[in-house]
Parts: sequence; C-alpha cells; structure tokens
Amino acid sequence: MSPRQLDANEIRFFSGRSNPALAQGIARALGVPLSHTRASHFANDCLHVQLGASVRGRIVYIVQSLVPPVQEHMFELLMMLDIARSAAAAEIHAIIPYFAYARSDKKDAPRISITARLAADLLVTAGATHVMTMQLHSPQVHGFFSVPTDPLTARWLFAEYLRQSDCAPEQTIVVSPDAGSAKSAARFAGLLDLPVAVASKKRYSDTRVAIDKSIKKQVKGHSIAIIYDDEIATGTSVLELCTILQRSSIQAIKVVATHGLYIGGALAKLQAIPAISEIISTDTVAPPHQTENSKLTVLSVADIFAEAIRKNYLHESIGTLFTFWDS
Amino acid sequence: MSPRQLDANEIRFFSGRSNPALAQGIARALGVPLSHTRASHFANDCLHVQLGASVRGRIVYIVQSLVPPVQEHMFELLMMLDIARSAAAAEIHAIIPYFAYARSDKKDAPRISITARLAADLLVTAGATHVMTMQLHSPQVHGFFSVPTDPLTARWLFAEYLRQSDCAPEQTIVVSPDAGSAKSAARFAGLLDLPVAVASKKRYSDTRVAIDKSIKKQVKGHSIAIIYDDEIATGTSVLELCTILQRSSIQAIKVVATHGLYIGGALAKLQAIPAISEIISTDTVAPPHQTENSKLTVLSVADIFAEAIRKNYLHESIGTLFTFWDS
Amino acid sequence: MSPRQLDANEIRFFSGRSNPALAQGIARALGVPLSHTRASHFANDCLHVQLGASVRGRIVYIVQSLVPPVQEHMFELLMMLDIARSAAAAEIHAIIPYFAYARSDKKDAPRISITARLAADLLVTAGATHVMTMQLHSPQVHGFFSVPTDPLTARWLFAEYLRQSDCAPEQTIVVSPDAGSAKSAARFAGLLDLPVAVASKKRYSDTRVAIDKSIKKQVKGHSIAIIYDDEIATGTSVLELCTILQRSSIQAIKVVATHGLYIGGALAKLQAIPAISEIISTDTVAPPHQTENSKLTVLSVADIFAEAIRKNYLHESIGTLFTFWDS
Amino acid sequence: MSPRQLDANEIRFFSGRSNPALAQGIARALGVPLSHTRASHFANDCLHVQLGASVRGRIVYIVQSLVPPVQEHMFELLMMLDIARSAAAAEIHAIIPYFAYARSDKKDAPRISITARLAADLLVTAGATHVMTMQLHSPQVHGFFSVPTDPLTARWLFAEYLRQSDCAPEQTIVVSPDAGSAKSAARFAGLLDLPVAVASKKRYSDTRVAIDKSIKKQVKGHSIAIIYDDEIATGTSVLELCTILQRSSIQAIKVVATHGLYIGGALAKLQAIPAISEIISTDTVAPPHQTENSKLTVLSVADIFAEAIRKNYLHESIGTLFTFWDS
Amino acid sequence: MSPRQLDANEIRFFSGRSNPALAQGIARALGVPLSHTRASHFANDCLHVQLGASVRGRIVYIVQSLVPPVQEHMFELLMMLDIARSAAAAEIHAIIPYFAYARSDKKDAPRISITARLAADLLVTAGATHVMTMQLHSPQVHGFFSVPTDPLTARWLFAEYLRQSDCAPEQTIVVSPDAGSAKSAARFAGLLDLPVAVASKKRYSDTRVAIDKSIKKQVKGHSIAIIYDDEIATGTSVLELCTILQRSSIQAIKVVATHGLYIGGALAKLQAIPAISEIISTDTVAPPHQTENSKLTVLSVADIFAEAIRKNYLHESIGTLFTFWDS
Amino acid sequence: MSPRQLDANEIRFFSGRSNPALAQGIARALGVPLSHTRASHFANDCLHVQLGASVRGRIVYIVQSLVPPVQEHMFELLMMLDIARSAAAAEIHAIIPYFAYARSDKKDAPRISITARLAADLLVTAGATHVMTMQLHSPQVHGFFSVPTDPLTARWLFAEYLRQSDCAPEQTIVVSPDAGSAKSAARFAGLLDLPVAVASKKRYSDTRVAIDKSIKKQVKGHSIAIIYDDEIATGTSVLELCTILQRSSIQAIKVVATHGLYIGGALAKLQAIPAISEIISTDTVAPPHQTENSKLTVLSVADIFAEAIRKNYLHESIGTLFTFWDS
Repeated sequence: MSPRQLDANEIRFFSGRSNPALAQGIARALGVPLSHTRASHFANDCLHVQLGASVRGRIVYIVQSLVPPVQEHMFELLMMLDIARSAAAAEIHAIIPYFAYARSDKKDAPRISITARLAADLLVTAGATHVMTMQLHSPQVHGFFSVPTDPLTARWLFAEYLRQSDCAPEQTIVVSPDAGSAKSAARFAGLLDLPVAVASKKRYSDTRVAIDKSIKKQVKGHSIAIIYDDEIATGTSVLELCTILQRSSIQAIKVVATHGLYIGGALAKLQAIPAISEIISTDTVAPPHQTENSKLTVLSVADIFAEAIRKNYLHESIGTLFTFWDS
Repeated sequence: MSPRQLDANEIRFFSGRSNPALAQGIARALGVPLSHTRASHFANDCLHVQLGASVRGRIVYIVQSLVPPVQEHMFELLMMLDIARSAAAAEIHAIIPYFAYARSDKKDAPRISITARLAADLLVTAGATHVMTMQLHSPQVHGFFSVPTDPLTARWLFAEYLRQSDCAPEQTIVVSPDAGSAKSAARFAGLLDLPVAVASKKRYSDTRVAIDKSIKKQVKGHSIAIIYDDEIATGTSVLELCTILQRSSIQAIKVVATHGLYIGGALAKLQAIPAISEIISTDTVAPPHQTENSKLTVLSVADIFAEAIRKNYLHESIGTLFTFWDS
Repeated sequence: MSPRQLDANEIRFFSGRSNPALAQGIARALGVPLSHTRASHFANDCLHVQLGASVRGRIVYIVQSLVPPVQEHMFELLMMLDIARSAAAAEIHAIIPYFAYARSDKKDAPRISITARLAADLLVTAGATHVMTMQLHSPQVHGFFSVPTDPLTARWLFAEYLRQSDCAPEQTIVVSPDAGSAKSAARFAGLLDLPVAVASKKRYSDTRVAIDKSIKKQVKGHSIAIIYDDEIATGTSVLELCTILQRSSIQAIKVVATHGLYIGGALAKLQAIPAISEIISTDTVAPPHQTENSKLTVLSVADIFAEAIRKNYLHESIGTLFTFWDS
Repeated sequence: MSPRQLDANEIRFFSGRSNPALAQGIARALGVPLSHTRASHFANDCLHVQLGASVRGRIVYIVQSLVPPVQEHMFELLMMLDIARSAAAAEIHAIIPYFAYARSDKKDAPRISITARLAADLLVTAGATHVMTMQLHSPQVHGFFSVPTDPLTARWLFAEYLRQSDCAPEQTIVVSPDAGSAKSAARFAGLLDLPVAVASKKRYSDTRVAIDKSIKKQVKGHSIAIIYDDEIATGTSVLELCTILQRSSIQAIKVVATHGLYIGGALAKLQAIPAISEIISTDTVAPPHQTENSKLTVLSVADIFAEAIRKNYLHESIGTLFTFWDS
Repeated sequence: MSPRQLDANEIRFFSGRSNPALAQGIARALGVPLSHTRASHFANDCLHVQLGASVRGRIVYIVQSLVPPVQEHMFELLMMLDIARSAAAAEIHAIIPYFAYARSDKKDAPRISITARLAADLLVTAGATHVMTMQLHSPQVHGFFSVPTDPLTARWLFAEYLRQSDCAPEQTIVVSPDAGSAKSAARFAGLLDLPVAVASKKRYSDTRVAIDKSIKKQVKGHSIAIIYDDEIATGTSVLELCTILQRSSIQAIKVVATHGLYIGGALAKLQAIPAISEIISTDTVAPPHQTENSKLTVLSVADIFAEAIRKNYLHESIGTLFTFWDS
Repeated sequence: MSPRQLDANEIRFFSGRSNPALAQGIARALGVPLSHTRASHFANDCLHVQLGASVRGRIVYIVQSLVPPVQEHMFELLMMLDIARSAAAAEIHAIIPYFAYARSDKKDAPRISITARLAADLLVTAGATHVMTMQLHSPQVHGFFSVPTDPLTARWLFAEYLRQSDCAPEQTIVVSPDAGSAKSAARFAGLLDLPVAVASKKRYSDTRVAIDKSIKKQVKGHSIAIIYDDEIATGTSVLELCTILQRSSIQAIKVVATHGLYIGGALAKLQAIPAISEIISTDTVAPPHQTENSKLTVLSVADIFAEAIRKNYLHESIGTLFTFWDS
C-alpha cells in the first residue's frame, strides 16, 4: 500500500443500494467514511435519492454494481451522478464493479441496441468524469466510454489465493472455457507458472455448437484443473466443460470467475458436481448467503478498487491493476 | 380530423410495454400499423429490445408511459430511442403520455436530483428529436427539454364528455383542489361555461397544512361539484376535499383527473364516498380492470395524441391541443 | 464568518456596470480587491469590454445584476464570461443577484421563448461554470441550468432586521400576497415565530382576477402586517393588497421584498399609502437615490453573497444560504 | 430570376425590429408573406417576443441587422431563433445583413473578447442552422461559424448602377481606401473594366498613421474617383482620403460602401465636400431619412438576399452571390 | 436491383484519392455521375481540396478507403466532409470500404490510443452524418460510432463466385484461420452448404503461440480447403495455415479475404505455394496490377455498396447486406 | 526568469516526431524531463503511438510542429492528445510552434475547407484543453479555437539579437514585404527604435500583382534593410523585394522570419543574393543542416515557449509573450 495518504476531507464516498458491503469495504480500505445515501420511491414509483454529505468541490466516488434489478440500479447511479454534478462536485468517479451491459457490445441482429455504448453515454450525460470497472466482457467496450475509464482485473487476487492452496503445481493446469478468454487465462496462468489449455466452442454449422473434446488431450497428464472465466451467470458453459473434464485425467476442478452472478440455481448445480472442489469468485456481485459445506469461496476486490482509487487520487500509474488484453 | 393523410410507409409506430393498448389506439386513429417490439431480459437481467420493422429514413414514433416499474420503462424507452437513432431513423418522436418524473422539478432539499431535467437530458442523449407528453405537473418542466416538446391537454375531452352528462349547469361548479391547479381549472370551467371555486392548501405554520374550509362558502348555492386535478396517485388531497364538500351545499361530486394512477387502493377509497357519483380519468396510465358497479369512467386520449401527431406530421399548428398556462 | 481565509491571489473579482456598489460590497466582505473592468461602445454601438487583471488559472467571479437595460447587461455579462474563458480562467462564477429572465419560465402563449432557459444556455456557451443568484421567481428555473447553480435567499437578513424593529410579535402577522409565495412567506414567518396569512388571487373566470377579501378575516386580531414578496416591479399587487388590509384590523404595514425594482413610480405610490410605515428591500437591484423622509430601507445582500462565495471556495456546504422550497 | 417557385406554405418569413423595410423587400421579392412578429418589454425591461405564425416543420427565415441598439437587436434575434427551434421548425436561417460584431475578430489587447466568435456561437446555441450575411469585415470571420454560412456581396449591384451613370470609363478609377479592401476593390473594378488605385494607411511608427500621399500619383490622368469600401461608420478614413484626392487630378468623387451607418453626422460631413458628387450605399442598414438635395443614393440588397434564399431553398449553388476573397 | 430510381440531381458523389476506380464503379452502378475532386498540396505540404460540384441541400456521398498513406487519406476524408458540411449539404455519407483503424480497438498496452474510437469521433466532428464500411476487424467497433453506421459484408459475393467454380461440394471444407473469424466463416460456409473447420491460434504460455495442428484432423476426408478471412496484410497467419494443411488430406486451397492489402510481398509469397490454386479478394483496397499467370481474382464490391446506398436512399432495410455477427 | 519553480512531478512533457530538438530545448529550459514517446506504423500503415510515462492527473504538454509530412504529424498529435485524455491527464496543452493550417483561414474559392478551423476543432475533439502556438498567419485564426489559445511572438528574440549586431541604427530601416505584415513589422521596429517601410503588393487588376516600386523611395537614405516577415516557404515575395531593394540606396539586407520552411531550395536562392548578409529565423521548424559559410542564423524559441509554459503553469499573465496585433 502506498504510504501517501488520502485527504479524507477532500473526498466523499457514496454507495448505491446494489452492493453496500463492497462499498463499505473499499471505504474502509481507503480510510474514508462511507457517507449515507437515502433512496426511496415516490408514490408513483419514481426514484428519490439524497446524498448525505456535502459534495461541493469534493472528489466524489459513487459505487454501484449493475446487478439485478439492473435498470433500477442503473437509474439510481445516474441520479447519484446527477446530484453530485449539480451540487458542484470537483470530480465524479463512477465505480462500477460489474458493468452488466458490457455483453451488449455489438449488433448481432438488426434493430437492437449496442446498450453498452448507450449506457456509457448516459453515464457521461449524468455527470461521470471517470469510470472504474472490472473485467469487461470484451476489451473493446473500453472504447465506448468518452471519459477516462479503467477496467481493472482480479487476476492477482486469484493467483495469490491459489498459491496458498494445496494445488501441486506439477499436476495443475489452467483451463479457459473458450478462445475468447484464452489470453486472459494465459496471463493468469503465467502468474502461477502453470500451463494453460483452451477449450473451444466449435461451430460445425451455423447452429451446432459444442465444447470441443480435444480439451481432454490438452489436459493429459494433469489431475487438477483450474477453470478460469470472467463471469458465471447460469453457468451452462462451465457445467458442460466439467462434464468433459471428468472423463479426462482431471480428478479435481477449481472454478475461478470474477463475477459470480449464479443465476437460476447455478451455484447449486456447480456444487453438485463431485469433481469440483472449490468455486472461487469475487464480491463485484454481492455473494449469496453461504450455506454450511458450501464450496464457494468469495475473495473481496475491495482492496483492488481501493488501491486503484488511491493511485488515481495520488496521480500514480495504475497500470499494474489494469487489464491489458494482449501481451 | 384533417382530410390530409399520413403516408403510412414513411412512418414507423412502436410501443414499449407500459401501455400497449393506448399505443394501439393511437396507431388505429392514425391509420398506421403498430409495429412489433420484442423485449426480454438477459440472464443477468439486462434489458434486450428489438424493434420489429426497419426504421431507416423513417419518421419514428415510440409510445411509452412512465408508469410503474418507472425506471424499467424509462430505460426501455431510452433503448428504443437508441435503436431508432443508430438505425438511421429520420425523426424520433418520444410520445410519453405520463411523464412521471415531472414532479421532481426543483430542489426542495439539499443534494437531491431535479430528476425531470436529468430525464429530459437522457432522452435527448438516447436519440429523441421531439417529445410529446400530457399535462405536466408544472408548466416550467417544459423548459427542461432541449428538443421541441409539446405538452398536450385532455381538457377538451373532459368538457365534451361532461356536456353530455346530466349535470345541470346552473347547479354545477368546478372545484380546483389547490391554487396550483387554479388556472387549469378555470380554463376547463370556461369550456363548460361554469363558475370555478379554488380550494387552497393553507399553511398557518411551516408544518400545519390543511385544505381551507372557506371552500364551503365558495360553492354555496351549487349542488354539484366537479373536482378537477391533473393526477390522482394516492388521492389524499381529493379525499380530504370531498370530506369538506360533503358538509357544504354540494350533494354530488364528479372527480376529474388526467392521470389516474390510483396507488394504494385510491380508487376503492374514492368509490366508497357516497357523494362521489363518477370518477373520470384518461388512459395515459393503463386503467385498472373495471369491476361491476365501478364509478370509474376512462376516456381515451388516443385521438388527442393521434391528432397532435397528425398535425405535427403535416406541419400544422397544434396550438389548440397544447396546454397554455396563462390566458 | 468562517475563520479560514481566501487566497486573494488565486481569485479575480470583476463587476459589470449594472450594480458596481453591490459588487464592491461583496469584494470588501471577502477581503479581495475588485479588479477594474473597462466597458465602452465602438462607433457602431457594439460593446467593447476589457478585464483589468490577468485571469489565467484563476478562480474568477463576475457580478452582474440583470437590471435595465437588461439585454445590454446580459450581453456585457456574456462577453465578460467569454473573456475569462478564452483567457484560461480555472473557474468562472457568474454572480447574478437579480436574474430578470426568471419570469419567462413557461410557454403561456404559442411561439414565445422560455427565455430563462435560453439565457441559462447562453451563459454556459459563453463560459460560466457555476451560477449564483437570489430568489428565483419559480423554483423550477433552477433546473434550466446545466451547470451547478445556487439560488440564495435574503430571508434571514429580513428576519434579523425585523427582530430588532418595534413590531410587537403578538400583534404582527406575515402576509403573502398570493399562493405562489406562500411557502416562502411561511418559512420567513417561521424565523420570526409569527403567524402567516395568505392572500389569494382568485380567478372566478378566465378573465376576472382579484385579491380575495377573505384575507381580512385571516389577519383578524393583528394590527401589524408584514407583506412578504420576492419582487416589486410596478407594485400593483401589493398596492391592491394594502387597500384591502387598510379596511381590516391592520393599522401598520411593512412591505418586504427581495428585488426592489420600483418601476414607473412604484416607490412613490407605496410611500403615499399612510398605513405603510416601512418598505424594506435589498440591493440586488441598485436602490433609487433616497429622498428625505423616505420610507425605504435597503438591506445589503453583499454579506450573503460573500459568505456563499467563501463557502463555495472553501468547499463548505452552503445549504443554509440556499433557498429550499418545501419544508 | 429562377423560374422555379418557392412553396410559400413551406416557408415562414419573419423580421426583427432592426430593419423591417428590408425584410419586407426580401419577402416581396421572394413572393412570400412577411409574418407578424410581436415584440415588447416586460415591466422589468426583459424582452418579450412572439412569432405570429406557426413554424412547425417549416423552413424559417429571420431577418435582423445588427444596427444600434446592437445588443438589444442581437438578443431579440437570439430569442426569435430560440422560439423557432423550440417550436419545431425544420430549418432556421438567420439572415443578418449587417453583422456588426465582425470587427471584433481578433485579440488586439489582452483580456478582450473575440466577440464575433462569441456571437457566432450564441447564434448556434439559440438555434440557427444556417447564416446569411453580407460583406464581413474580414474574410476569416466566416470561419467563426460552426453552421453553414454565406457571406454575400453587393458588388454587382453597385457595378450595374454605375454602368448606367455618367462616369466616362476612360476618366474613372476605383480607389480603395486601404490595402485590406484592395482585393475587394479590384474585383469590383474588374466588373466595370476600370483601373484600381490602392491608398494605404502607412505606419511610420507604432503611433503615427496616415493615408499615404502616393495615391495622388496613382490616380494621375483620371478625373473621376470611385472610392470603394465595405462600411462607413464615422467616415474618418474616407474624409481624409477625399481631402488628399482633391489635391490630385480628381475632380469628382463617388463614394461607394455596402454598410452605410453614418454615425455622428458622417453623412452631413461627406455631403459638405464639394468634390463628392454622390454617396452610394445599401439598405443593409436602414438608411437615414432623405433630405432634399441629398447626395445619398441607397440601393436595395433585397433582391440579392431574395435570390440567395431562393437558390438555397432550391438547392442551387449561390457561388455567384458569394464573396470570394482571392481570385 | 430495386426498380425505384435515385434522383441523380439530389445526389452528389465524390471520391478521395485512395481508390477512385471503386468509387467510379459504385457511381456507375448507381447511375449517378462521379463529381470531380481537386486535391493538391500547398508549398508547406498542407492538403488543399476542392469539391467540383455544388452540394447545397444535396445528399452527399464521399468514398475513401483508408489505405496507405493512411493518415494522409484520413485527413483528406476529414477535409472533404468538412467542405460538404460547411457548404450546406443535407446529408453526408462517409463510405469507407476499408476502415484501417478498426484494428486499434482496445488498450493492449498502457497509454496507447483506441484509435478506431478517435477516428470515429473525428469523422463526426468533420461532418459525417452516416458511415458505411465493410467487414470491421471486430464487431464491437460498430459501437465506437455516434452516428448511424452500416458495416457491410462481401460474403454473398464470394459465395456466388465460388458456386460457379469447380469445387466439388462433397470434397470441400471452409477453414477459418482462427476462432475470432469462426462465426463469420460459418455463415459463409452456410451459404455454400459446406462444412467448416476452425483452426485456432493456441497459446500454451504468454509468449508461445501457434496454429493448432488439430486442424488436420478436422479437415480429414476433404481435398479442397477454402480459407476464409477478413483481411490479408502480410499474410503470415494464412501462410502458416497453408503449411499445415499441405500435410493433411487437402490438395487444393482457395484463399478468400475481403481486404487484400498484400503488404511486403504477401501476394507473391502466397502465389508461390503450389497448393494454393486461387486467391480471391475484393477491391475495397485497390488491387495490385495483375501479372500474367496471377492466381489473384478480384471481385468488386461496387455493386454491394451501390445497393446499400440505394436502399438507404430509398429508406429500405439493408439488413441483408449487413454483417450480423451471431446467428 | 521566474524564481518560482515548476513541480516536475506534476508535469509530463512529450514530443512528437516533427521537431524533437525544440521539444528537448523547451524541456531543458523548464527543468523537466522529456518523456519518451514511441511511434511506429502497423503493417497497414496505421500510426501506433505510446506515451512513455504515466499522465494520470498530470499536467501534460505535447510539442508538435506541423511541418511536412503535415497530415502525418497532425494525426500523430491527435493521437497523443487522445492518449493523454483517455489516460486521465488533468490538463492537456498542445504546443504547436508552427501551425501550418493557419493559411487556410478563409474561403477564397467555392467548396474548399477553412482547414484552420477544422484543425482547431479536431484538436479539441482529440483532447486539447489549451493551445500554444507562434505567429499565426492572420490574427483572426485565434478565434477559430474553442479552447484558450496563446499565439506567441519571436519579435523580442530577433530584436535582442539584432541589437548586438553591427547594424548602425541611423542607417537601418525595417521593411515589411506587404501591408498584411505592416503592424507586426512596426511593433518589431519599435523595439529597435528604427523606422519602418512597408512594401505593398499592389493589384492593378484582378490578375496583375507586383511589389510596388515606391518602396525604393521609402527606404531612401538608409543603407541597411531588415526585411521582417512571418514565414519563408518558397521565398518568392522576399526574393522579389530584394531585387527591388538592390536598386535603391540599400546596400545590405538582413532577412528575418519566424518560420523558416525553406521549401524548394529557397535558402540557397536567398543566399545567392549578394546583398543579403544574413538570414535569421527560428527553430519553430527544424532548421536545415548548416553548410559552411551559410548566411543562416537560427535563434531558438525554446526559451520563449518555456517561459510561456512556466507562466501559464504558475498562473501568471503571459501578455508580454503574446502577439497583440494592434497597438
């Protein structure tokens, strides 16, 4: 951690309702108070938000993860930005640990919205002067923002955790569930000095898609697989990959993913696979309540965001916290 | 109706999910088809919208009323505007029969949002080139929009309906529930050649507010009251006014309001008041399912919006459909 | 007053020609020099303005009240903002004690301008990064500005002055000349622990408007009335109200208004009413030369603006100096 | 004139108060009615403007010359543009026959405004989508506008008039009063097949400026001089030039200038010079009332603006009406 | 082709210097003349461009492919857009067959530019109101544009050509050189009813990258391979892929790529591989001069751009000409 | 030099490839390091630039002179600005010693670009928040920039140098080669207490232009001429002027020009004129390699830019370094 300190009086730190625990964690790591935000609805369902501390001339941070209900959380964030802007904040940093709209990044059908670009524009209209986020679905989404934007990565966090685990390096291999995540997985594997295998979703025709079985050959000789992905929503891809890996030399699987949404019973389905020994994700999305015997490990990204905010505040480079896509 | 016709081929007419019946009604009145819109949610709850007809070079109308869930409907509207804009529509008209955010029109506390201004700016960012709405809460909200905006009125509709009712003019008086609506009520009364009384919410101290009982004196000599207001949400003010009027010469009450939200059982409470013979509102908000013996009459604003759209399309003045605030 | 000091070297303080005495007063209260501004006209009547001190990297304050000739003063202000902007000022604060265009805040006729919105946009185009003003005609005008804006109030100033006057509290009542000013009057009365009465301009038809005589009943039992309004231009409403109050229990009247324009002999007409013992307004508009035996008292808002500027400069909340509209 | 007609119904033509006769002349030449504009002042001196015909979807032309009171006329123009914009005009053409601010086109002192650029930006903020003007002081001012702009010229008008005058070509020479106008004068002389002489304001030191007497040698052998300039305000330069020419071979002088402001008795002073036989200017500025025996001839630019508007409307090139600066 | 005609008088069609033959081809297919453009350099190397036909009120198309010298061609395009904008064109369509900056679509190192976004913004600043391009490197680049943008595809063109070739369908397989192009290749293969194989650039560590040899197994049983890619610059990937395929069952290879840049002798290197029977690319980049016995076949995209322009002009959907990325 | 110091840690100083020696000189004079910039081309000729030091929250200066290849250098500058902007620089100063596009400052033909305005807009789109340049071709170009811009002058530098030369003041006269440079020359002459003569390019018809021979009379009595101009490109005007001066009383000529482009052998041609004893220009353009016996003297503007940057950084007025055009 940097020895130079933030001036808590110059900073105002707020959280929307999407993930207050993470916001509290970041504030604590920074040593600044999390100011109160009051959110409610008018009789006609319009949102009403009030920031609980003066922002005049201050450097304002607003934490909001775009988790369900996504549109409600997005609009709450837009209102918080607007309040800070119109109340004369000096800088307004939108901290969006999970930028859900990133998946709508292209027109794969006529007359649909590239919603990630729309959302980026709306954030700027509302007042954001800087955006921090984590592990965007595709690196190009970075280019949708017209204000400086820092997409961070949780890769070091996972690496540090796994180094202290019981995975014997000579038996372990990192597995990327598809080619799109391959570069990211390779960087991660590099941190642990592990080899990497890349499953690919092959496409024999326009409609037939499946995970290629050649992954079995790639993992040959290893007994532990670390599946590394950016996000688990319904978990379908990872589940299929595990099914195939179970028929290979792999005997134990650790699933690692930055954004753990676990929609539609995904966590239960993953835990039900005997070969999976651990599921590791972060708190960019507020994690589900832990049951006893849960295989889920949640690592907090609070320190990463805190460090990025601190470096940004102190005008230090945050390159090491940044997600670069190619080497 | 204007004898000149719209070129249906030049127009594309879409509806969000908030009030499809009204959108269908407007389209029918205009003689243009209502094109399909497909809306769904991704696994992570992000909205996914697809417009069902080519908009290239077309004049596009998108109807969306900001009823609950307001933020979801607002974002859906923003996405529909964005789709039309990026798919090269020639003009994009946002038809917002009920602009719910209009009530957030000033800072009555520190560090809150003038959300009506924010919403106006977001609509323009997303692509709206023109806005049509009805009966804004305060006339100044018109000035929040940076694109041409037409706030329409339903006053003629109510007047025409009431002229055919059984209200003997010499016994009837229009009652405005507060001073803010007085001008609007006076214009309405003028259409029916009726006198007007204005109740006022008096304020004897900063905290004590009540409807002034002098309204009883004002209505003296009349037995029928037509309460005229812009919106009924929880209906508290109207309920209190009725209580007072019941102790005056008034024996029958008709309640008239443009936006019938009827939140929290408001409709039932109003119907339970024996003196109320009829509650008349419009379909800017999709009306509740009618029960037998309901006192509710719903007048459709479809023809008003259709006529405004037609006049705008044909470059005719829509002054007569417009809400002017002072005479 | 805040013990923390402004850095006079970081600040540049200028005045247009509309109200130099007030600008001088604000500068004196802040302890910063009022830099010279040179304004003249070219042969062809175009305005020529030169700021008399370097603004590079400085925090610049420009004071201009939009008093007659309004358009000339507005354009002078636009030019001063433009000079500061193009000469690389760091911040440009437009201090507009009387924002005359605020009354053009809605379309009450077809094809007119919502000039308050236009003026707000022009100020931003010219370079204003922040606006301070006082007692806007309607609170919604705040939402016309796309840069942070602080509408201040003179209510505390009047209250402090009147507390030291000879008005026996038990005999005194605050009177608002119409419902629109009622909330503002109630807040003011609250500061003095006085009751409030609200006259209302009733509207029996679209053309017949008059001040309701029920105000006489409301003031019953009090002998001193403090009429509280935002602005006196030609003074017609206040004059009519006084006529009615003279026929009630009221024996002495004090007229209190923030902006004292006194157009068309208004001051003389008010002074001619025997019951009026004192007329109290501020110097947002440069006051008329005082004649002997004048009933006019002018309170300076210089300290209020100075305090707001100081707090803004020091990044303190100015909530207490701010006009909030509802309690 | 083009045989193709304008659709009068698609056009709305308005005039500010600066030069209604010219506006009427342009409208007449175009065959479209000049719609009424109502301008007045509120009690507090704010301008109030209402356009007298619906502009919805129309192509709107607004004529305003920036003559004294310049700032008042500028603001009136801004308001008229704003009205057209917010009332949904399709195109808004600002026709500014005399753009007075053009002379403020550079910073020749610290902390002044390049007001011509500011004015150009304000016009666009208010709603202008196209600008037409005549004979800008310097050609670079064209580049200050961010919307398409056409600076027209009256040179053909003067040439046609003079061809029919009594000036014997072999005795006549065109004289430009300074080098800045030389190119313009040369083009004008070319139309009449006349030679051109260029007086120059020489500068022997930073403060000593005078018209160089070598002009006498240049005009040698000619007895008639046509002084050609863009604008006569106080007329000082032309007066000095005439004084020198009177001591040369020149016996008769015609003064030709596009913008005849005639400030501070300039017209009388020019008429008092016996050698001046005629002063010819246009009605971009409303001409002074003609006295008997006046030497002033006013040529109307109405047809030129009408032709430019017609060509623009019909999407024809207006190159021939345009002022190009170099050959 | 659509039976409805373009109004040649409403259109102006220009070409930069990058690919005049293609521009001429598009113009011919549209039946409109290609207007002259004059481009030269001033002595100081600044570019000087003049459009050779009036654009006032016209629909303007400007064709420029961003081929070397890229920056010079980009600036020429910006100037042509600026000329059209400031000369009052009604619509300005930038037709960019090869948008070279598309490859700079993310930050894969600190402090570099996402140049594709910058270029998109510059095009809009200069005046583009619509962009047409072909086969962007990644689909997300579409979202960098703030004006409507149509990325077209040449896939149908290639399919139609190959259907008439001598490739026996039962022996032929489409090969995508990496996973990123897989979807595109699958759509192409679908048009020909052919199977598809996807080579993948595998990444065993952060530095070791190679084309996976499993492609040999995938193509088993086929003797003809159609390699399908978006662009051939230096051709390294395709060359390596051919090397591997030569050691499989494949006996003949056809290389198909939209943008044929053929940098650094790429074409010669490809032609030197005996198994390659034909190299098929388009004229988005002006093709090299053909030598005798060349294996290069160039298909013109002129008809595709012409058809897209025609449909856009006639307000028809161009969905079928559009590149959608997922099925 | 100012005693106050720059905080080297707060500053980042970069140079494009156009004039690294000047950039190095400015950095040295400021006492800050010149950070590395890496520029290269992709295979497809697209430019690739990387800034070699973190700019987050820093005050960034980017030096680029628009010398040939102009368009390549312009685009490189745009990319460097974009990188700084998107990497969260606090301020971005474009230091453009030679702004080549300044000569394209008006429309002297139909359908050409006022490229200086376009270039100014592109610089702002790319991220420039402030511009510094030197000796613009016309003072009006200043008004093309929408961000604060400082056009500096090298006049003091030349004066100081010449004061130490062997020019006997009583024999020396400053000569401006045309009227457009007269004011600038007069200011320069004033610094040296020398008289000034102004040659003028006369225009007897639209096509016949020549330097007026009356210059010979003006320089009568002086034997040394200092020709003072803003820029020497091909040098044609100066060469013609020298030819004329050689036939006057002038026996020695010194040529002084800010921007020494020396295109097409201009330097050799000038050196070949025996009367020319010295040619003095600055390093805004990187000077040609000096041959032995060269008459060229190059004065560095590094200190002037350094001083302007220092004053701007320290918020001091830079009026004395600024080019004002009129006295």
